[in-house]
Order: sequence, then C-alpha cells, then structure tokens
Amino acid sequence: MKINILTLFPEMFTGVLQHSMMKIAQEKEAVDISVINFRDYSSNKHKNVDDYPYGGGAGMVLTAQPIFDAVDHLKEQSKGSPRVILMCPQGERLNQKKAEELAEEDHLIFICGHYEGYDERIREYVVTDEISIGDYVLTGGELAAMVVVDSVVRLLPDVLGNEVSHKKDSFSTGYLEHPQYTRPAEFRGYKVPDVLISGNHKKIEEWRSKESLRRTLQRRPDLIIEEQLSDQQKKWLHELQKETD
Amino acid sequence: MKINILTLFPEMFTGVLQHSMMKIAQEKEAVDISVINFRDYSSNKHKNVDDYPYGGGAGMVLTAQPIFDAVDHLKEQSKGSPRVILMCPQGERLNQKKAEELAEEDHLIFICGHYEGYDERIREYVVTDEISIGDYVLTGGELAAMVVVDSVVRLLPDVLGNEVSHKKDSFSTGYLEHPQYTRPAEFRGYKVPDVLISGNHKKIEEWRSKESLRRTLQRRPDLIIEEQLSDQQKKWLHELQKETD
Repeated sequence: MKINILTLFPEMFTGVLQHSMMKIAQEKEAVDISVINFRDYSSNKHKNVDDYPYGGGAGMVLTAQPIFDAVDHLKEQSKGSPRVILMCPQGERLNQKKAEELAEEDHLIFICGHYEGYDERIREYVVTDEISIGDYVLTGGELAAMVVVDSVVRLLPDVLGNEVSHKKDSFSTGYLEHPQYTRPAEFRGYKVPDVLISGNHKKIEEWRSKESLRRTLQRRPDLIIEEQLSDQQKKWLHELQKETD
Repeated sequence: MKINILTLFPEMFTGVLQHSMMKIAQEKEAVDISVINFRDYSSNKHKNVDDYPYGGGAGMVLTAQPIFDAVDHLKEQSKGSPRVILMCPQGERLNQKKAEELAEEDHLIFICGHYEGYDERIREYVVTDEISIGDYVLTGGELAAMVVVDSVVRLLPDVLGNEVSHKKDSFSTGYLEHPQYTRPAEFRGYKVPDVLISGNHKKIEEWRSKESLRRTLQRRPDLIIEEQLSDQQKKWLHELQKETD
C-alpha cells in the first residue's frame, strides 16, 4: 500500500511513523508512507496556503490551489485511482469496518488541515472520503490522520505477527474483552480469580465468555444483539441482568 | 496543568509534543508534559513489564507492579489527587464534554499499553478513568493519549489566540460548520456562491445558518434537537427535509 499525507506540519509525524508497528510495517515493505508539505505546491510567491473567508468571519481558510495541485501530482504517479481522504470533524466517523475497507486499497492520500477550514471546492472536487475519528475538537487533522493510518496499516498482510493477531481484539469479536491477569497471583493483597489458576480449561473458557458478556453489558450494551447469542449466552445474560436489578 | 504519560514508547511522542499548538502551550507554561517509560519502574532484574496471561491464551499482559509503582511515585509528587486515565478500547468514549471536564483538572496521568492487555488489578485499583477515542483498534494507547491530550490542552486558558477561538468549532456550537470559501472567486471553473461576494451581511449570515443546518441534517441528523431550534431554523429544516424527499 502507498500512503501520502499532505500537511503543513510534516515534523509532527516523525515519532509516530518511525517507531513500533509503523516502523515494522515500513521495514517489511507492507506500506510506503510519505509525508508532504503542501505549502511546497503553492503557486503564490510567498507560498501562502490560506486566505480570509469570503463573507467575513474569524479564522483563515485553506485555498484550493495548493491542495488541487498536490493531489493532481500524486495521482499522476499513481497506478490506480487513489482514495483522497479529508480529515475533518464533519466527516464519516471512523470505525473498524471503515478501517478494514481502507486496508483493501492500493493508495490512500490524506489531507490534514490545521486550525483553518478548507475551501469547499476541495471537498467537492478533490476529496473522495471525509473522515472524523470522533466527536471532539482537535487542533488539526494530523493526529486524526495518524490514527486512521495506524488502524489501517496494522490490518495489512504480514504486519502483525501471530501473537498479536487482531482477530481477538475488542470490536473484532463483537464483544469487549474479558479481564486479563498475569503474575503474581497476589499483588499488594489483590488476588487473581481462583478459576484462572485452576487449570480447568473448560471452566476458564466459560468464565471468560461470561465476563466478556458482563463487561459488554456494563459498558457497551449497544453491542449486544440478543438474536445472535447462543443459548448459554442468553442464560448468562439473564443472570447478569438480574444481578444488576 | 501537569500531564504525565506512562508508555513503553516515549519516542513516539516527540513529533507531536514539539510542534504546533502543543509546543506553544508548553512555551506559555499552560501545561507541563512529561513522558515516562514505565519500564524504568520494573523491579524485575530484566526490566520486564509483561507476562503470560493466567488461564492461557495468546498475547502478553502488562503486569501490575511497574504501573502501580510509577503512579504511586507521580502521586507523591502531586499537590492534588490526579486523575489516572487508562487508554483502552473498552473505555468511555471521548467527546467534547469529557475533554472540557478534563481541562478543569490540575493533574492528569495517562497509561498507554501496547499490543498487550492490562492486568485487571491496574483497572480496579489504580485507574480513575478508562477512555477510548472511538470504535476502532489501534496498535497501542499512545496515539489515543495524544488525541486526548490535544483535545484537552487546546481548551486551557491562553493556549489558543483569538483568531482560532474554539467557540465556533463543530461540536462546540452543536451544529456542523457551514461551507467556507476563499479566493479566487473562480478556480478551474468552480465558483464561489454569489451571496458570499454580495457584501450583504444579513444574507450571508442567513446563508451560513441554513447551510450549517443543511450539513448537519445530511451528515449528523442525531445532533438536531427540534425543540431547541428557532422558528426560522424550523422553517428551514422543513424546507430542507422536503428537498431531500
């Protein structure tokens, strides 16, 4: 996969792109990421990239020209037709399904603004997807783009080893993960549940399924679809609901 | 405000913390941010921080000891009682209200895991808040912590100048922002709406209010609460609903 990130703050990306999973993914050549300052594409002699909004108002607006030209240039070098993703709070909210969909693409171009809004013509004629990572205000699109890139790149073939398989993560299974414990069995007087030390694998699996259901019921009841539960899960669900009554 | 971030990948934070708004906020001493490798607190001679899960299964689990001790140490140095925030996909979802609530605090401690789960005793006895930034899987809590920190720090007094006031952002007003345009009035044949160039401020304000409502209706109808609309907004809403029928 090829990823281009258009930003006015390319230095913001160094720490995140050069460590951990993102570093490994690039070393394995699963992804080729380049961060581009779209100010370099400004045809203005002062290399301006923003201007006052028509109709007045506070703040500046990113002009169409540098972003149109930067995307044109990247598209010319592309073999396919890249998805052009605008990071903005008004966009479609990122979820795991969207990340999986983007992971199927060959080429993604991200556009990150900072403080300013975008000239609407960028939205209308350049962008294929507008994505928001959640209902909160960030200083710019850079962190949001890093979040989308992380969620996508970790899904690419061969990026994660077997031991960190993404199949069992929260959201991938549909339920929140059960509690986990590791050594020591007692720490500052706080103990690990007996069942986990029992060696009885059937009981451990049962405990985990039930605790996973409990946690989902407590924290994210919206994720539970009763028709999809097994008979055992339905029985637990009723028990758990009674406990909280 | 004081912020401590506990992580195994402190280098991931350099780009984001040393540029743009976050840099300014630290220079203005609105916030004091330190990133701490909690491996340094491991009492294990190999400085291990994770171990196999009780009951078996793939993956590793972060052990209680280094995180308990790191948080204890930070709390000893704290004047108040810090909020201890665990970044995890099972947590409460971040929204603007939560960011505003955290911006009132004097001291925040973030705990970021990576790949692994957390020993449940960390959740039960150390953590005051579990936060998720959205329903997608990330490689670790680092990017999620950066997102929370950005959303909080920009709300601190004096961090943002007047021109980038956060009062008019999407989510702060309750509706999505209207389209913005800047020069030139025509670019590659695509024109700016006449009203914005008319100089008629009343009409411009009307157009903006209506377009803000239109965009919210199209993209986030869940944000529209009909009882809270003015009579004029109600009239537009009915017009807009008819247009889409």
